[in-house]
Amino acid sequence: MYKVDMNSDLGESFGTYKLGMDAEILEFVSSANVACGFHAGDPLVMEDTVRLAKAAGVAVGAHPGYPDLMGFGRRNMVCTPKEAKAYVKYQLGALMAYTKAQGLKLQHCKPHGALYNMAAKDMALAAAIAEAIAEVDKDIILLGLANSLMIKAGQEAGLRVASEVFADRAYQADGTLVPRKLPGAVIHDTELAIARTVRMVKEGCVTAITGEEVPLSADSICVHGDNPSALEFVKNIRARLEAEGVTIVPISEIV
Amino acid sequence: MYKVDMNSDLGESFGTYKLGMDAEILEFVSSANVACGFHAGDPLVMEDTVRLAKAAGVAVGAHPGYPDLMGFGRRNMVCTPKEAKAYVKYQLGALMAYTKAQGLKLQHCKPHGALYNMAAKDMALAAAIAEAIAEVDKDIILLGLANSLMIKAGQEAGLRVASEVFADRAYQADGTLVPRKLPGAVIHDTELAIARTVRMVKEGCVTAITGEEVPLSADSICVHGDNPSALEFVKNIRARLEAEGVTIVPISEIV
Amino acid sequence: MYKVDMNSDLGESFGTYKLGMDAEILEFVSSANVACGFHAGDPLVMEDTVRLAKAAGVAVGAHPGYPDLMGFGRRNMVCTPKEAKAYVKYQLGALMAYTKAQGLKLQHCKPHGALYNMAAKDMALAAAIAEAIAEVDKDIILLGLANSLMIKAGQEAGLRVASEVFADRAYQADGTLVPRKLPGAVIHDTELAIARTVRMVKEGCVTAITGEEVPLSADSICVHGDNPSALEFVKNIRARLEAEGVTIVPISEIV
Amino acid sequence: MYKVDMNSDLGESFGTYKLGMDAEILEFVSSANVACGFHAGDPLVMEDTVRLAKAAGVAVGAHPGYPDLMGFGRRNMVCTPKEAKAYVKYQLGALMAYTKAQGLKLQHCKPHGALYNMAAKDMALAAAIAEAIAEVDKDIILLGLANSLMIKAGQEAGLRVASEVFADRAYQADGTLVPRKLPGAVIHDTELAIARTVRMVKEGCVTAITGEEVPLSADSICVHGDNPSALEFVKNIRARLEAEGVTIVPISEIV
Repeated sequence: MYKVDMNSDLGESFGTYKLGMDAEILEFVSSANVACGFHAGDPLVMEDTVRLAKAAGVAVGAHPGYPDLMGFGRRNMVCTPKEAKAYVKYQLGALMAYTKAQGLKLQHCKPHGALYNMAAKDMALAAAIAEAIAEVDKDIILLGLANSLMIKAGQEAGLRVASEVFADRAYQADGTLVPRKLPGAVIHDTELAIARTVRMVKEGCVTAITGEEVPLSADSICVHGDNPSALEFVKNIRARLEAEGVTIVPISEIV
Repeated sequence: MYKVDMNSDLGESFGTYKLGMDAEILEFVSSANVACGFHAGDPLVMEDTVRLAKAAGVAVGAHPGYPDLMGFGRRNMVCTPKEAKAYVKYQLGALMAYTKAQGLKLQHCKPHGALYNMAAKDMALAAAIAEAIAEVDKDIILLGLANSLMIKAGQEAGLRVASEVFADRAYQADGTLVPRKLPGAVIHDTELAIARTVRMVKEGCVTAITGEEVPLSADSICVHGDNPSALEFVKNIRARLEAEGVTIVPISEIV
Repeated sequence: MYKVDMNSDLGESFGTYKLGMDAEILEFVSSANVACGFHAGDPLVMEDTVRLAKAAGVAVGAHPGYPDLMGFGRRNMVCTPKEAKAYVKYQLGALMAYTKAQGLKLQHCKPHGALYNMAAKDMALAAAIAEAIAEVDKDIILLGLANSLMIKAGQEAGLRVASEVFADRAYQADGTLVPRKLPGAVIHDTELAIARTVRMVKEGCVTAITGEEVPLSADSICVHGDNPSALEFVKNIRARLEAEGVTIVPISEIV
Repeated sequence: MYKVDMNSDLGESFGTYKLGMDAEILEFVSSANVACGFHAGDPLVMEDTVRLAKAAGVAVGAHPGYPDLMGFGRRNMVCTPKEAKAYVKYQLGALMAYTKAQGLKLQHCKPHGALYNMAAKDMALAAAIAEAIAEVDKDIILLGLANSLMIKAGQEAGLRVASEVFADRAYQADGTLVPRKLPGAVIHDTELAIARTVRMVKEGCVTAITGEEVPLSADSICVHGDNPSALEFVKNIRARLEAEGVTIVPISEIV
């Protein structure tokens, strides 16, 4: 039997600012990455998001980012591994106050934005993140880019790791993503995106932009709920996966 | 046998900014109130402060404040109880990531500055803080102003509570502090301050500014390590308490 | 000939967070209050908002607030007058960099949210704001609540002042607003709101909630563009004012 | 007659946090770079620093940095040129509110920390900074690293530019600084540092770490007042320059 997790970034509102269709997307995903107040989210939003996820039966994970609210955590910042490690611990702990208060275990941790992208290629940064998680709670799963250094760092830190794949992104022959600035990086054909995802999940393999067949683990699919059409795509991909015999379950039931 | 806790606010540095003589004051206190990043402190500072306290054998507590770094959490802010509750949880959790990583239990929580002062007189705010603590971990002790609503709120929330007294402050007949802006609020005579403190600890009583004898619990004495003369005072008060047969122990051994 | 200004709060987006229908509301107002980065707005948003206002022929003013992005500047903060004065100067200057770069003069300054509400009733705070403006540029008009201490403080500081009225709010016999928490504070009948506004502008008078006729200057009407129905109301009130022979002009052409 | 400016970073305190010996260093320098609230400084500090500089007869300049208080603006952040341009304008304007209120002209702008270092080697970033200054006020002088792209960008933007040199740093054959992480980057021999500085000012030339004689403009010498020994060095270098017939004057009297 095939199974896969579907994860989405949630709790990205801040104060009076609302972002995302959290209530709607929670009907379709199995894991929620909750922003922790550095690049998005605030204490009230975090508490509400944990409550919403719990009510929807969706597993909760932390989504720590760089301390850059103005840039939404999407701008590269050169922090030392020691700084990054301390930042991840802080954000993990802050979110765990809400999960603990609501009787939940924190399932996973998926770095956000620039932290995610930089850690995928920088072993010292990836190790800092993995060690932060391991020191706070060995049971937290590290969710990182498939075939990236984050996965390797998680394994070396003794964590369970989950590999994330993207339905609408092209892959290189080495199993990493084609950078967004290159042509063909994003797959706009919805049918093709869904078909590729089904294959990643069922066959553990994807066709690279250069034609090679690339093996990759597809433990979790990243989906977005920013707008109605994104939501529609999520609904479709979930329906198609289920029609193909794939069960959608939280990461903790996979790795 | 008499015993009392001595607590001090620590970890108030931020980034490149250094504040306080943390290493020095840790030799004399039994409990550390660690700033949690809202009014002071940052992730690296929090981690280092927990490490320093652990090495010194000093119990660690959280020192949550209003989100006002520019005002050092000393300015009154009108937050809803729901906001205050969420802010306290966030800060408790953030600090617990570091205590957990270093194998410590968080001993207590003492609100900082304006949050402390406002909660002492505002039952809804005090209850919000107490409930935040209770929901995160029932074992965390609430350290609040003796005879204040914070103590009452902690008891109603089912928490262990500890009453804090001040060596250098005058008291009113109702057992609360004489406001700083009134004449006589601060006791500048060191000998008198120490003698009053010894009496608070051994007799559970203090002479009010208006002459009455006022009963009060003295579970913990607030001391400061901002500068060499403050530190000298702490050294003196500790020596005198010990000479009077009072043992200095963490709050958890008192309440 | 009758004339009045219509003002609206703009530039309240921040980073990835979008707020308000700025482009749409600019078609109907004559003055824009631009957030300056403390309670809302960021450098890119400020620059864009000044550009949009200039293109629409709308006069630009500063909308300084408390340093409380998480609370959108709506929470009372107890700052000293010296702090408030320095905060207003900072925000005025920051916005003036963009108006200067685009060849505009800053027309006015209207405090935001809690700063506006507190200054309306606190002479020391109102004076601090007025002096901040006067010290930065005597030509900047202070836009404040009609009949409030802000108007008085502006006059005492030697500034031109403009009195702001609200179409949908009830007034007390002393010419100040009925607090929002009291019954009847908000006028939900659109027709009535518009009729009252026309009368405030043409007759300089409004009927208090207790029945008295209250004189008040109506130099500028506060309107909002948060959502389509708010925008519809603005369109209606403007059309009706014009039908009644009232010309909509920037504050600088009124006071 | 020889002349040179001596500049120092001032106003780096924040809220309760004190940094630097501003009052002391102001006795020895001719230009002050005032932090503008992004990486250091706050409105009260900025206002006080402008007042102190004015009283000491020291010219005031802006010292804008990245929005990274936790990292003191020393961490590289990947901002777009458009973002950097808007950030510089914001900070220039904010400081100009205080100089304007005190009847001063803003003399110059020197980017801080990571913004300074990155702009020295990145033409798009350097151009963004130069254009920000030019759009706000063409009379503001851009103070940047000698022989760097900042100087070039300032010239292309039609600004007056001033070249900054460092007494205690080694230079490469191309006239740029030896990176701090390389051996020999910092000159610890005080006498040598002073002699090199005198030669840079009087002969416009320095000996590179690889032995070549490198021409460079020495319009302004960067000095620090972080601690008593740094202050002592500043006193010495100034005395020696004056003994060598060099007059210390603000940048505006040089370029």
